Amino acid sequence: MKVMVLNGPNINFVGIREKDVYGIKSYEDICSYVVEEGKKIGFEVDIFQDNIEGELINLIQKAYLEKYHGIVINPGAYTHTSIALFDALKSVSIPAVEVHLSNIHKREEFRHKSFTAPACVGQISGFGEYGYVLALSALKEHLNK
Amino acid sequence: MKVMVLNGPNINFVGIREKDVYGIKSYEDICSYVVEEGKKIGFEVDIFQDNIEGELINLIQKAYLEKYHGIVINPGAYTHTSIALFDALKSVSIPAVEVHLSNIHKREEFRHKSFTAPACVGQISGFGEYGYVLALSALKEHLNK
Amino acid sequence: MKVMVLNGPNINFVGIREKDVYGIKSYEDICSYVVEEGKKIGFEVDIFQDNIEGELINLIQKAYLEKYHGIVINPGAYTHTSIALFDALKSVSIPAVEVHLSNIHKREEFRHKSFTAPACVGQISGFGEYGYVLALSALKEHLNK
Amino acid sequence: MKVMVLNGPNINFVGIREKDVYGIKSYEDICSYVVEEGKKIGFEVDIFQDNIEGELINLIQKAYLEKYHGIVINPGAYTHTSIALFDALKSVSIPAVEVHLSNIHKREEFRHKSFTAPACVGQISGFGEYGYVLALSALKEHLNK
Amino acid sequence: MKVMVLNGPNINFVGIREKDVYGIKSYEDICSYVVEEGKKIGFEVDIFQDNIEGELINLIQKAYLEKYHGIVINPGAYTHTSIALFDALKSVSIPAVEVHLSNIHKREEFRHKSFTAPACVGQISGFGEYGYVLALSALKEHLNK
Amino acid sequence: MKVMVLNGPNINFVGIREKDVYGIKSYEDICSYVVEEGKKIGFEVDIFQDNIEGELINLIQKAYLEKYHGIVINPGAYTHTSIALFDALKSVSIPAVEVHLSNIHKREEFRHKSFTAPACVGQISGFGEYGYVLALSALKEHLNK
Amino acid sequence: MKVMVLNGPNINFVGIREKDVYGIKSYEDICSYVVEEGKKIGFEVDIFQDNIEGELINLIQKAYLEKYHGIVINPGAYTHTSIALFDALKSVSIPAVEVHLSNIHKREEFRHKSFTAPACVGQISGFGEYGYVLALSALKEHLNK
Amino acid sequence: MKVMVLNGPNINFVGIREKDVYGIKSYEDICSYVVEEGKKIGFEVDIFQDNIEGELINLIQKAYLEKYHGIVINPGAYTHTSIALFDALKSVSIPAVEVHLSNIHKREEFRHKSFTAPACVGQISGFGEYGYVLALSALKEHLNK
Amino acid sequence: MKVMVLNGPNINFVGIREKDVYGIKSYEDICSYVVEEGKKIGFEVDIFQDNIEGELINLIQKAYLEKYHGIVINPGAYTHTSIALFDALKSVSIPAVEVHLSNIHKREEFRHKSFTAPACVGQISGFGEYGYVLALSALKEHLNK
Amino acid sequence: MKVMVLNGPNINFVGIREKDVYGIKSYEDICSYVVEEGKKIGFEVDIFQDNIEGELINLIQKAYLEKYHGIVINPGAYTHTSIALFDALKSVSIPAVEVHLSNIHKREEFRHKSFTAPACVGQISGFGEYGYVLALSALKEHLNK
Amino acid sequence: MKVMVLNGPNINFVGIREKDVYGIKSYEDICSYVVEEGKKIGFEVDIFQDNIEGELINLIQKAYLEKYHGIVINPGAYTHTSIALFDALKSVSIPAVEVHLSNIHKREEFRHKSFTAPACVGQISGFGEYGYVLALSALKEHLNK
Amino acid sequence: MKVMVLNGPNINFVGIREKDVYGIKSYEDICSYVVEEGKKIGFEVDIFQDNIEGELINLIQKAYLEKYHGIVINPGAYTHTSIALFDALKSVSIPAVEVHLSNIHKREEFRHKSFTAPACVGQISGFGEYGYVLALSALKEHLNK
Repeated sequence: MKVMVLNGPNINFVGIREKDVYGIKSYEDICSYVVEEGKKIGFEVDIFQDNIEGELINLIQKAYLEKYHGIVINPGAYTHTSIALFDALKSVSIPAVEVHLSNIHKREEFRHKSFTAPACVGQISGFGEYGYVLALSALKEHLNK
Repeated sequence: MKVMVLNGPNINFVGIREKDVYGIKSYEDICSYVVEEGKKIGFEVDIFQDNIEGELINLIQKAYLEKYHGIVINPGAYTHTSIALFDALKSVSIPAVEVHLSNIHKREEFRHKSFTAPACVGQISGFGEYGYVLALSALKEHLNK
Repeated sequence: MKVMVLNGPNINFVGIREKDVYGIKSYEDICSYVVEEGKKIGFEVDIFQDNIEGELINLIQKAYLEKYHGIVINPGAYTHTSIALFDALKSVSIPAVEVHLSNIHKREEFRHKSFTAPACVGQISGFGEYGYVLALSALKEHLNK
Repeated sequence: MKVMVLNGPNINFVGIREKDVYGIKSYEDICSYVVEEGKKIGFEVDIFQDNIEGELINLIQKAYLEKYHGIVINPGAYTHTSIALFDALKSVSIPAVEVHLSNIHKREEFRHKSFTAPACVGQISGFGEYGYVLALSALKEHLNK
Repeated sequence: MKVMVLNGPNINFVGIREKDVYGIKSYEDICSYVVEEGKKIGFEVDIFQDNIEGELINLIQKAYLEKYHGIVINPGAYTHTSIALFDALKSVSIPAVEVHLSNIHKREEFRHKSFTAPACVGQISGFGEYGYVLALSALKEHLNK
Repeated sequence: MKVMVLNGPNINFVGIREKDVYGIKSYEDICSYVVEEGKKIGFEVDIFQDNIEGELINLIQKAYLEKYHGIVINPGAYTHTSIALFDALKSVSIPAVEVHLSNIHKREEFRHKSFTAPACVGQISGFGEYGYVLALSALKEHLNK
Repeated sequence: MKVMVLNGPNINFVGIREKDVYGIKSYEDICSYVVEEGKKIGFEVDIFQDNIEGELINLIQKAYLEKYHGIVINPGAYTHTSIALFDALKSVSIPAVEVHLSNIHKREEFRHKSFTAPACVGQISGFGEYGYVLALSALKEHLNK
Repeated sequence: MKVMVLNGPNINFVGIREKDVYGIKSYEDICSYVVEEGKKIGFEVDIFQDNIEGELINLIQKAYLEKYHGIVINPGAYTHTSIALFDALKSVSIPAVEVHLSNIHKREEFRHKSFTAPACVGQISGFGEYGYVLALSALKEHLNK
Repeated sequence: MKVMVLNGPNINFVGIREKDVYGIKSYEDICSYVVEEGKKIGFEVDIFQDNIEGELINLIQKAYLEKYHGIVINPGAYTHTSIALFDALKSVSIPAVEVHLSNIHKREEFRHKSFTAPACVGQISGFGEYGYVLALSALKEHLNK
Repeated sequence: MKVMVLNGPNINFVGIREKDVYGIKSYEDICSYVVEEGKKIGFEVDIFQDNIEGELINLIQKAYLEKYHGIVINPGAYTHTSIALFDALKSVSIPAVEVHLSNIHKREEFRHKSFTAPACVGQISGFGEYGYVLALSALKEHLNK
Repeated sequence: MKVMVLNGPNINFVGIREKDVYGIKSYEDICSYVVEEGKKIGFEVDIFQDNIEGELINLIQKAYLEKYHGIVINPGAYTHTSIALFDALKSVSIPAVEVHLSNIHKREEFRHKSFTAPACVGQISGFGEYGYVLALSALKEHLNK
Repeated sequence: MKVMVLNGPNINFVGIREKDVYGIKSYEDICSYVVEEGKKIGFEVDIFQDNIEGELINLIQKAYLEKYHGIVINPGAYTHTSIALFDALKSVSIPAVEVHLSNIHKREEFRHKSFTAPACVGQISGFGEYGYVLALSALKEHLNK
């Protein structure tokens, strides 16, 4: 069973970016960690990152065309503004889980609203890179039901 | 006289996507239908689709540079969020008509507002793929005035 | 097949009223034009105009009782304030198309909201009197489906 | 003691209109039922219906001039938009009770607000045609105090 | 020079209605007073009152067709809700003055907004029936400029 | 058939509390009156009052566990703030009627919104203690349907 | 009987300032005109102008201490922001009339709200310098009642 | 290491309550499952449920006084209204994780806002009873850091 | 003369809770201090604390039944959400003073609004435990008037 | 130790102004009373009043330059509109206490918000002239800490 | 060519006031620096500061009367509240540039809105005292066009 | 020292686009001008333009990776909608200055808000292409501090 992990804008700069919010681990280290943990859970994990909203839609469409079983998505800042990503997730029939590294409810007002979460099974926020592992577990549980 | 038909994010997934809202005809079938009906009205129709907001702007600028006589645009979800597309349409002097497959006034609150419509001659919404034909007719009438 | 065209408040003053917004053709000329174009499309068209909100409801009820096949409605300013017209359109089972002479999205904020459009098949706005012809075509297409 | 029952726009189409919301009994049946139940309670009941907001005001003024002891009013959609009906009810000194067939609090946001209720003794909503009987009882109790 | 004085809903009930707000003079007395004062100012004054919004539009159109020189309008509660009256006033080229018996700025929040005033030369509010006389004077001054 | 009447915070202080709003009858007198009137209608009525939001939920759950046929609820101030009571009413399958002693639409803005009414069959407001009798009648009618 | 005419910020620049909005007559000419017309009406008129909000309050207090019979106030931009002027007008027992040269309802949204008008007998807006004469007449009428 | 699992109002009615939203497993079964899964993760889990907001605060204070290492809290409807629970969580120094059975972002607007989440490490929503297991894992990871 | 001091949710955790906001003195120390200072002012002070909103209402009702002369209330977080406490304070005829340890105007937006203050003589906020002493003095002054 | 008491617009008119809100004591009497009570507390009190917002800023700057130990400020209506006074209070390092004669939370909505309170130690509202004495006590306590 | 530099409330306290926001340079040093840099650019610079909103209007009127070629204005806190300053700037025909020492977009929400900027050529914010030099350069460029 | 100048959507169409707002100079001419002026100030300037939001993020990340000393950014319409660009600017440690050709405060309401400015040193708006030169000067001054 294969899962697409999709990271939105600026996520590739963790470790560089606002370290007090996002921690010091590099993006590459996080990717390796997620792939490895995914394997333990029983998933083949492919990770993509893109700063471009429309490319994230392209990737969601690719997930559909290449028959991925699940999507774990961290839409970054597009979470709060993108109706197009919401539409994209709804237009494919793949279960998705939304993840955020930081606790978005603790931050600026405009980060509290998620356009994409209603198109997902659920949302996990605030647990750093471990959030991806929780999301993969949740996806596993969901697919087994 | 040539017209550019411009489709925004997720429009290429009609037939796959939420069939109760958008119908079951595939995107390719709709494209052929629109080109053919356009010919009857007297237009050479070129259709472009892109999931990327900025590429849609590039295409509007291309319409200007390649001297299209009109634009029919279905900006998809970007209708409701994109000031940049509004600016792009205003920055070129080509008459445009906005089309929506579904009746956006019947759907979620956030789909009622259109940023792009004020930069168009008019808006047509709710008539499925036939909306494109209506838009081409409206454009014809407008150019003849 | 017969269609009722229903015009709301002040529509009878086109040609007199704000000519830069609504054009110079008189209301009578527009009516003849719509009836004639309707005939070409295959409809017997009856046009009514009333400045009174409740009379428009009476006319919608009349359309039900006299078994009209479709309604084309330009509710004028009542578009933006009348829940009662919305209820009236929903209470009869006749397909309706909403038309506006001007592009309501280009005008005052309070003209962007339509109470009546969600009770219609779709909405057409911004194409002057040609909008009625587009609406009749759309109605034809809808009834043929 | 005589009571005026006043029904607003579209109420005359119950039985025809959205049957899942308003039930299948015809308007005439409901009228007979209300008159009969009114008689049991001790009221001579006169029922009026009008789709025109201003005619409802005329009827409220008639109630004043013809010395009705009470008003039961279902202002339909005008409940949510009409300051003029609010003024009319306040300008006469007749106790009024507001009735709604459906539970307006369960429906669209814009049906939660009542402009007319503050000019009434109270409001009853959600009990179908039986609501009129409750309103007549409430009026009786009020007049006996 | 002839002037149409147009009174909206419930104005005919002054003297009966909320006397602490509107005073005790009857509507007939106010009419006579206004006609007489109008004569002194040099106007032939015709007064109309209607509870129906659309009839007020009909009267404004009549003012256009019968070539009145000015309109004094007290739109009553429709002041705060009627885009249609705003459109009607704008669609004729007759200078209008808006009058309110009570000081609308002292009353409920929803009475502070006027849809009709932007279509008038100016607004006078709070001076009881004397407001009509002030409005006629203002109209005189305006027509003399 | 047994019915639970549930009164929220401060209702036990009627007769003591703001007498111009709630009247002078004591809570005990109102209870006796409601039980007696309930008996006439054919109900065994049990009345509970609690100032604690969560205890009201406990009582709704008790109504479920002890198989009450209906609930009449006056949630007092919790009407306007309690999502938890809304959830509680929805989580049991017992028809409920909401009652308010005063006309909540005549009072402060924050009392116009009801969180609990959408989980009830209907709402009755403004008729003092007689409102409970109306509610019991409404419940009777509803259960007979 | 003496009346204080009080002009707020920038009023002294009429004739210089935005001539399309405020006309070309100089402030001095307007003052002479108002004093003269005031005399005809039977008032001794003293005119003050100040750009400082607090000085306008000082002048209102002076009107109290020097026993003026009435105030005509054009608070300029402070109309829309000054609770302090509202308090000042309410703290003295002198009848006041609010005047605006332009029709404030036709201009920017933020000019529609008046903080000061609720502390006045009424408001007159849109009639240029003639508005002061109307205000003096209104004051005369008010004082005679 | 011991963890307190805290369930708010109506959670004890899962299995009874709106089964399409919350599933059919009984509250007791969910409790056993969570305790057992907690044991596997290495936690001694104590579960409490209360419908009373203030008792949930008492339990949070108890967690402080009895030195629990972590809290998993599902505040139910109080999530969206309780500043007091937010204060309680902030006033103790115990890491907490917020859990929701359903995906709150898919439901009514008023369920999107969480007052309590900003006082927690993170939030998990939409995965049914498995959410508790994810929360316990997240807590474990957090405590190990 | 006896006074009830009523503390709402989490107040019993001062000294433990967010020390930078609330200081380090324990709740017991504060209580002793307030009782002692109260004695100096001439009051017998009884202090109650409860985390449950409804119990605070019970205590206010107890104050009425046991004839307390005054109430000093720190409703904690319920200040900002509880209409029920507002009703409770209004339903008894005992003068009350609202106190807050911290300056609520300096903190989160949602702490600026007080539902309970309008039912009190006044509000004191920002002076730590000394605020209770100020409140008792204010109460003394008020009772002596 | 010397303290500046600063009174904003219209405060000098207490005793004249809205007596039901502000009492009948004259401003001079209140000043004497505050100076005297200040002496008892151990402060040399200088009182200033100005209707001009900017002069109040000048006075706050004077307090800085002349090394006052504390400020008691009643900014009157400027409380609710003046960011400039907020800036002024923050720009000097003198502890300040905000006082209001009336309970601002009981009055118009626009009086609930305080721009200046966040720049003060705390706020006292509703206790008439005794509020100044409470403020001086609070200041004393604050300076002793 | 002479330019008026106009500083609003509290600007004279830079160096004293919130040093982390505004820096440590004294107001006098900044003034000398601006005059000197102005000279280099080719302007005779006169600097005025006033805490009183109306005096700033007086100074703008003085700039008109004394034929200044340009205005550089830092309206301080009045930026966000003063319609009167907006009117003053619009009433004179002198090009103006708005300057802010701090980056107002980084600060409190209420500092994001500028009432005065729409009456200026442009706005410069966030560059400390160097902002005045940028403004003078911008003015030079503007006057040379 | 090298600086990246970053232009957002539609900026490449200046000279073509809305000439009354943006002037007639072509984009190429502006670029040459900025590079040249930058050289005078002591900067090597590289200019990039992209219509795609995500590509602008890519360019900001490139600025980080290629060690630019500063960024001058004109985010065009994305200024008002892009949280992702705000995040990108915050995630790199390069000082940035925001520039707008037109005075955004004079235009549509939705152009007043800037998401990106809080991540910049400051903002300059309204001075056409000269704004870039001002921004480079400001950057120079900032880097020299």
